[in-house]
Amino acid sequence: MSETPKIKQRGLMLVLSSPSGAGKSTISKALLDSENKMIMSVSATTREPRPGEVDGVDYFFVDKAEFDRMVSDKEMLEHAEVFGNFYGTPRLPVDNALRKGWDVLFDVDWQGARKISNSAGKDMVGVFILPPSHEELERRLYDRAQDSDDVVKKRMAEAAGEMEHWAEYDYIIINDDLDESIAQVRAILKAERQRPNRQDGLPEFVTAMC
Amino acid sequence: MSETPKIKQRGLMLVLSSPSGAGKSTISKALLDSENKMIMSVSATTREPRPGEVDGVDYFFVDKAEFDRMVSDKEMLEHAEVFGNFYGTPRLPVDNALRKGWDVLFDVDWQGARKISNSAGKDMVGVFILPPSHEELERRLYDRAQDSDDVVKKRMAEAAGEMEHWAEYDYIIINDDLDESIAQVRAILKAERQRPNRQDGLPEFVTAMC
Repeated sequence: MSETPKIKQRGLMLVLSSPSGAGKSTISKALLDSENKMIMSVSATTREPRPGEVDGVDYFFVDKAEFDRMVSDKEMLEHAEVFGNFYGTPRLPVDNALRKGWDVLFDVDWQGARKISNSAGKDMVGVFILPPSHEELERRLYDRAQDSDDVVKKRMAEAAGEMEHWAEYDYIIINDDLDESIAQVRAILKAERQRPNRQDGLPEFVTAMC
Repeated sequence: MSETPKIKQRGLMLVLSSPSGAGKSTISKALLDSENKMIMSVSATTREPRPGEVDGVDYFFVDKAEFDRMVSDKEMLEHAEVFGNFYGTPRLPVDNALRKGWDVLFDVDWQGARKISNSAGKDMVGVFILPPSHEELERRLYDRAQDSDDVVKKRMAEAAGEMEHWAEYDYIIINDDLDESIAQVRAILKAERQRPNRQDGLPEFVTAMC
């Protein structure tokens, strides 16, 4: 009987989506603070750095030619144009992290989630965060920005457009209690690490035991 | 704007399988002790009650005619014959529990798991528990029963036959540390409760918010 082979944990891609005001940024920050092996995905962009932004931390700043090369060499998990600037998710840093057993967090809307899902397959876990009620979402949007009625109305319409896509996600969290919502995402991470496809070497492990 | 409808949690069917000696019974007991809303599935059987066994607790004791009626009326989730006695899982108590938001625990082998999966569909969550190594499984089987070499050899062969089916399960736990394995199953339960199909009324909830 040879020695039992070791299992190597493969990381996962945690995609969090929600309408603004549902608490996604707070939950993301709490996860990055509390999870030992989790990084935030860093996008590449063709737009100019703003004061204080650091290359490789806030974004990978690239020119249009390099961006186009990365797209045509299939080095982007997904990419999109927003107001004349280009944004994309480089595949290589994500692949490296997953292989080392690190999880990668993505804060994207339903369109980004759908594109990542097409490239990432079973590496991706999609979580959609909902506000606890219409009234509460409205209240949060007012509180946040002291916005005018018109701006809040526009944001509520955008929120509705985003929430329509809840059914495309693996898990739905209704963010009524922030601590409980964070505990739910952490449980999802802990559970998903027990998926057979995230335990590299499992077939060999079982074979060696039989 | 009408009041936001309430979500009603639907329970799940947690199917635990493992070779004997992997720690399934200990984990099952710990779950039943610690989870607020979890019951063990009770099988129906045609065999005679043994001293101390209570009808409706250990088994539902039924005669052959009643058993056959339950099967032909599709009141069994799964059933099988073992040494001339018949065993089956009545569907009704499980359905009632799930509807009230209670989880139901099943301690079955891969054949039972496969049959339950065919009837239960998305209500079922399958978890397979593996021992940490061949040597450790052998040691546990020796320790447990002070069995002879021949008996342990036979049990090891049975274990191998069971372990071959690991890939049919949603989650795989390698039971190296009992507390960690229990924490992993509890995380699976907590995560799976956030699945959209276990949150009754979610479409109406979202519609009311948009």
